[in-house]
Amino acid sequence: MTFIESTLSAVVSKLGISSAEEPPYYHPLDPLTASEIARSVDAIRHTANGARLWFKSIQLVEPPKAILVPWLDEYAAGEAVSRLDRTAEILVGRRHSKGADWLVYQISLPETGSSQIISAEPVPAGQHVPPDMGEMMAAEEALLNNPTFKAAIAKLDLPSNAKVVADGWIYGADTLDATPRSIPFMVYLSFSDNPDTCHYAAPLPIVPVISADTFELQRLDYCPIYGKGDKTLLDLDGRFPWEAYVPNEYDQNIRATAGLSSREDIKPYRVLQPEGASFTLEGRVIRWQKWAFHIGFNYREGIVLSDIRYDGRSTFYRLSVSDMTVPYGDPRAPFHRKQAFDLGDIGAGLTANELALGCDCLGEIAYLNFDHFSQDGSPTLQRGVVCIHEQDDGIGWKHTNFRTNRPSVTRSRILIIQTIITVANYEYIFAWRFDQAAGISLEVRATGILSTVAILPGETSPHGNVVSPGVLATNHQHLFSVRIDPAIDGHNNTVVQEDSVAMPFDKANPPSDNKWGVGYTVEQKAITKSGWADAAPEKNRVFKITNPNKVNPVSGKNVAYKLVPAPSQLMLAHPESIAYARAEFGEHHIYVTSYKDRELYAGGLYTNQSNGDANGLRSWVARDDNVDNADLVVWHTFGLTHNPRVEDFPVMPCEIHMIHLKPNDFFTASPAIDVPASTQAFNQSQLHNPGQHLQGDNDIEEKAKANGLNKQGCCA
Amino acid sequence: MTFIESTLSAVVSKLGISSAEEPPYYHPLDPLTASEIARSVDAIRHTANGARLWFKSIQLVEPPKAILVPWLDEYAAGEAVSRLDRTAEILVGRRHSKGADWLVYQISLPETGSSQIISAEPVPAGQHVPPDMGEMMAAEEALLNNPTFKAAIAKLDLPSNAKVVADGWIYGADTLDATPRSIPFMVYLSFSDNPDTCHYAAPLPIVPVISADTFELQRLDYCPIYGKGDKTLLDLDGRFPWEAYVPNEYDQNIRATAGLSSREDIKPYRVLQPEGASFTLEGRVIRWQKWAFHIGFNYREGIVLSDIRYDGRSTFYRLSVSDMTVPYGDPRAPFHRKQAFDLGDIGAGLTANELALGCDCLGEIAYLNFDHFSQDGSPTLQRGVVCIHEQDDGIGWKHTNFRTNRPSVTRSRILIIQTIITVANYEYIFAWRFDQAAGISLEVRATGILSTVAILPGETSPHGNVVSPGVLATNHQHLFSVRIDPAIDGHNNTVVQEDSVAMPFDKANPPSDNKWGVGYTVEQKAITKSGWADAAPEKNRVFKITNPNKVNPVSGKNVAYKLVPAPSQLMLAHPESIAYARAEFGEHHIYVTSYKDRELYAGGLYTNQSNGDANGLRSWVARDDNVDNADLVVWHTFGLTHNPRVEDFPVMPCEIHMIHLKPNDFFTASPAIDVPASTQAFNQSQLHNPGQHLQGDNDIEEKAKANGLNKQGCCA
Repeated sequence: MTFIESTLSAVVSKLGISSAEEPPYYHPLDPLTASEIARSVDAIRHTANGARLWFKSIQLVEPPKAILVPWLDEYAAGEAVSRLDRTAEILVGRRHSKGADWLVYQISLPETGSSQIISAEPVPAGQHVPPDMGEMMAAEEALLNNPTFKAAIAKLDLPSNAKVVADGWIYGADTLDATPRSIPFMVYLSFSDNPDTCHYAAPLPIVPVISADTFELQRLDYCPIYGKGDKTLLDLDGRFPWEAYVPNEYDQNIRATAGLSSREDIKPYRVLQPEGASFTLEGRVIRWQKWAFHIGFNYREGIVLSDIRYDGRSTFYRLSVSDMTVPYGDPRAPFHRKQAFDLGDIGAGLTANELALGCDCLGEIAYLNFDHFSQDGSPTLQRGVVCIHEQDDGIGWKHTNFRTNRPSVTRSRILIIQTIITVANYEYIFAWRFDQAAGISLEVRATGILSTVAILPGETSPHGNVVSPGVLATNHQHLFSVRIDPAIDGHNNTVVQEDSVAMPFDKANPPSDNKWGVGYTVEQKAITKSGWADAAPEKNRVFKITNPNKVNPVSGKNVAYKLVPAPSQLMLAHPESIAYARAEFGEHHIYVTSYKDRELYAGGLYTNQSNGDANGLRSWVARDDNVDNADLVVWHTFGLTHNPRVEDFPVMPCEIHMIHLKPNDFFTASPAIDVPASTQAFNQSQLHNPGQHLQGDNDIEEKAKANGLNKQGCCA
Repeated sequence: MTFIESTLSAVVSKLGISSAEEPPYYHPLDPLTASEIARSVDAIRHTANGARLWFKSIQLVEPPKAILVPWLDEYAAGEAVSRLDRTAEILVGRRHSKGADWLVYQISLPETGSSQIISAEPVPAGQHVPPDMGEMMAAEEALLNNPTFKAAIAKLDLPSNAKVVADGWIYGADTLDATPRSIPFMVYLSFSDNPDTCHYAAPLPIVPVISADTFELQRLDYCPIYGKGDKTLLDLDGRFPWEAYVPNEYDQNIRATAGLSSREDIKPYRVLQPEGASFTLEGRVIRWQKWAFHIGFNYREGIVLSDIRYDGRSTFYRLSVSDMTVPYGDPRAPFHRKQAFDLGDIGAGLTANELALGCDCLGEIAYLNFDHFSQDGSPTLQRGVVCIHEQDDGIGWKHTNFRTNRPSVTRSRILIIQTIITVANYEYIFAWRFDQAAGISLEVRATGILSTVAILPGETSPHGNVVSPGVLATNHQHLFSVRIDPAIDGHNNTVVQEDSVAMPFDKANPPSDNKWGVGYTVEQKAITKSGWADAAPEKNRVFKITNPNKVNPVSGKNVAYKLVPAPSQLMLAHPESIAYARAEFGEHHIYVTSYKDRELYAGGLYTNQSNGDANGLRSWVARDDNVDNADLVVWHTFGLTHNPRVEDFPVMPCEIHMIHLKPNDFFTASPAIDVPASTQAFNQSQLHNPGQHLQGDNDIEEKAKANGLNKQGCCA
């Protein structure tokens, strides 16, 4: 046992944490285990040379497709599989007084023998590594103890009971010149000793900027405090009517203490699964209703779904949320810098909530843990970062024979793989949904607390909405990039754009093939070179990911899955702006690129303070290479332009957005046709207090009870 | 007791049916009760003059708004309310050998005393009354016994085991000239004695047309049987490879008999509500989670929701699905006539399924019955045409304090008012959803069986998809018109269109108010004259129904509800086609008209065989009258262009579409902020077999159990 391994096991036993390591199961896409993390760290300890090693990311390098695909096919065929060698990648810094040198190591992790450094590359000049929780905390401490900052605060004549709270945020590039790696702070007031008080209801119009290297104060930015114009606190000698702020609490305990009662008329609603859930987990491979796939998880993307097969047929090689950008629409400094890349800058894995039984889902729930690390490289465990459960999704399909009055009805059961991330003030809920009709959906719920700034009471802004006295919630966008790596009955696919188009018609001289003007046809356009396309709901535009080598025997058309793109508004920032340049996935709804190993992050490898040369999606599209009957990747950009409502504060009710991947002539009939009938015997629903419909309803109830038949036989 | 009343009570006791009549409760919008129907019929019996009276519709005339609003306000205020006189409207025909004369009667139904004819108006010349089940059945019988039809079938050399099945359909206008009222039949083959066999998998390329007046055969239309061109069976001497048809069954019993097993790995999933549902019903007035409204139901629209208030504040006066059109895209005769208006031609009330306990929903369910009538005017009862239940809709809102790691999380409970209609081969599921954040959504699920026609095996069509051997499912559209009669804090409202628009930017000379090119603003345009507008997702276009007389004290903006229009493809039929003229609501997403009593049906009063002069939405818009700070109605057209997949056969998995009405600065904070925390103690979820995560998961479980707290305190 190496030094680090013994230290690790000591730590593990001391903390009483469990490793997510899964000895009985092996899959080459499983996240690094605690001991693999330890072995990786172990391999580079000696490179410290007395400097302080600061670990940013330690994660699995997924095997190249050329190596992985044969393995997956053998595995799917139930053959004995060999163990593929594992490789870890470490992003680590050597911190010194002036800053830090950042390097990327690749470490081989042979099953036996010690780990080895394969390669070591410095982070390219001009690129900035992302911040991390350790840096954020250190920077916050440095800020709150900084005399210049304290003096500036002292000038503000704050209420005696006000405490300053500072949230580390993301610094956005505002020039093409390299800027020192910086952490801006959104500063607020707290009027309570309870750390869960909603300080976002009392913003301070000051943005201090701290060096992410030295943690020194770089400068203080003062924010505009009128609805229009650039006047700041400095123009008002620091005067602001702080007393205008009112509590706007969300925490149920705080609300209760303040006498704000919760509604009491919502009765218990429980999901009971007497025979358990319908899925099985072997390690991180899940099997449910003809579906089988691997559930990976990493620091940056969070959930990664791989090798997705339905009834043994390959559908998708890899699905993940690749990146996202959140640009704000208030053009006034320093607000113009507010453009977060929550995945690239911080990481969906790093910020994943530890989900708790029965709080975030109902029914029988499985949780997946994640072996992680702290900045010094010691292993940590994130519990329940992924939850897995089934959900009833209403009627799956129904037909009633009007002659016999006999309905055939089924319920739609779905499988949900969910993770929830907290990015300072805001939350995203990512849920992959699998259904019995062989469809896959990604549901994104946007919730959490708006990023707020101060505005003089009585003022309104053209760039946002006042959501609490003195509190402006700025208009902004959320643009997600979903990476879809298809394998529709094989890895050589073609994306075909399909529009529904009216046939030509001239009332005076009706064409013989459209005499009455009602005809329409479907216009197809194959995307043969890497490029982009946009949603066009007015044309009923869909994108079919086809396998040009496989024909559906019933329809005579190529087997396919279709993507109905969400036609959300795209990037509002001007095409010549840096904000636009940075969002390499923000200008179109659909991108198609040729597959290349490790091209995973649409916004580029280093989005933090990026200025548009991040070598991301835009450059891959520019290759103009063949994507016809080829191994390709589809990228879908969608999201929401969020102009806040007062109703979005203090915590925003979930705004729900979904995209769908549906089989289209992939099967020879409805794949859900064999779902058993929905019956009262199976569902055991209850009749609501019959009230005024006593006779009729009892009748329904008795019929339902009597030998499991109701009058229509739907419960046969 | 009048003659008809005694007959009625005899019938009632004989059939052992229950009336939906609700003595203890009274509401002026309650549907006609069985005895009101009887009294209405009673009032016109004497007009028969020996002819056969044929009743098409008998329904409540809703009181004029001027009379109803004061009543509703008193009722909402809990004051003692007077009983408003009731009026029924009857559409009835006097059938004779040559056809029938159709009249519309208004009948007064005073609380005491006998019913009286208020008015009698003939159906305008050139307008056609809708078909009804009685006519459909009579026509079907006439067709199957018709010698000409039988002779034509005999020529086809059908397999000996083949039986002919004929589904009555809707006849579409193909000229502006009046055409006799007709019923076309879609004819199929059945190869089984079981009436639930799927005959839609064996279409016959013949469309016989029967007179809806005399039930005589008008003619036989032969259908094209190639993918392109007009060649019919006549061109092939009636030869068609009938043996190409294969069974494509959906009925679970038939499938079981045929050895087609249903999947067996889906385990029970039950919704338990140990303390019952959270709603209360008084008659047809429901109260749930600060919501209160009346649930009406009628022959044509089905569910009608009225007087919708949240926390005592008025939001909407009336919500309903007003009409829909389903035009088909195959331009070849006789297919070009396929354009159904399922509400106007048939009726969502008439075709509503009788829902059965536990087959169509889970949990504790309430059902509403509907007093209806048969063609001879005798009362009937439709049981369970509306079901009411709660559903868990996932996380309502969540925020985790990254400092304390304490999450505040709530679940979203929704109330669902649902009806399901069967229109011959096809089904629609309409569900109004009310949430705890004061939002209202309409969910439409399209399911059922595609309307199929014959196509020679091996052929493919530019106008549809082959979904089973020899079976073509034609491309078509479903366009719904939802009628939204708002009362946003009062009846004088204004609709404002709002786009999110980038600010001007010039990189060379950045404007001082948008130096970095990231700024955007919201462009508002009030709709002041009756007119239309279209969805524009690329501009993030929303429509706010505002009350210009009420200002939100927090934001300083007018209180409003916003409608995010579904940007679905609009009518594909050419603007100069009859099909387009008939769909008066098919050309735009949004229409705004001034309120007028009884302007309820977007497609006009008589859509059957209408040819574009139906006096519907188009003519109301043309009035060009004031809708600014006025009593107005918003009409939203949305739907789906449905190019069938093989996966949509034999029964289509639900295609789900939703529209949302959300408060926008209507409240002074999130209306859902007082929803109690989601806790394991309340939800009682179960942990999935821990598998490889034993220690970690047990830990989660124990923490959750221990005094109802999990490690994050979310279950506090």
